[in-house]
Amino acid sequence: MAEKAQEHGTAECDGAISLAFTLLGKRWNGMIIDVLGSQPLTFVALRRAVTGISDAVLSDRLTELAGAGLVARTVNDGPPISVSYELTTAGQRLIPVLKQLGTWASENLEHAPLA
Amino acid sequence: MAEKAQEHGTAECDGAISLAFTLLGKRWNGMIIDVLGSQPLTFVALRRAVTGISDAVLSDRLTELAGAGLVARTVNDGPPISVSYELTTAGQRLIPVLKQLGTWASENLEHAPLA
Repeated sequence: MAEKAQEHGTAECDGAISLAFTLLGKRWNGMIIDVLGSQPLTFVALRRAVTGISDAVLSDRLTELAGAGLVARTVNDGPPISVSYELTTAGQRLIPVLKQLGTWASENLEHAPLA
Repeated sequence: MAEKAQEHGTAECDGAISLAFTLLGKRWNGMIIDVLGSQPLTFVALRRAVTGISDAVLSDRLTELAGAGLVARTVNDGPPISVSYELTTAGQRLIPVLKQLGTWASENLEHAPLA
């Protein structure tokens, strides 16, 4: 409270943090990456793990995460043919940061009245 | 690729990471917290710093972040009367994690074709 609020200054977003939230500031993306952090998963297993997501939205998100170079898609010849998803090296590098976010949340949001 | 994709297992989201993204998996919230990490800001300065946000959405997000205990609102008697926003201790504790997210993004997303 002692510090005066800046009104006419040059406060601005950190470009790299803003870049991170271009991707992570969309519902589900962080959770999809978190779930794939443990192992590759088929589409069906992934949908089951990310509670509440629909097929269409999961499909959109996986396309977006693949486009950003964080998730790789593999078609398994079968039979039966199946498609699996796994993190790339870039995606794996996000896992330790997600775990820290989780630690922060459990220590600071546990009792917060989230919408 | 060597690891077989799990299809019928028990993969699930980490509850704490999921909790973090209840808040951060919404557009703007991470950027608002990042910008307030440097100093308290008035509503006007905050809107200017978070490029592209509207008054109504910024107002909604600040209410949500205050409800979660991350942002505190102070009315300055003036004249002129103004309202300023600053991070609580819980909010400040998120800043180092956001900086790590930024580092990850600049090292891994710089050239990604983001939507």
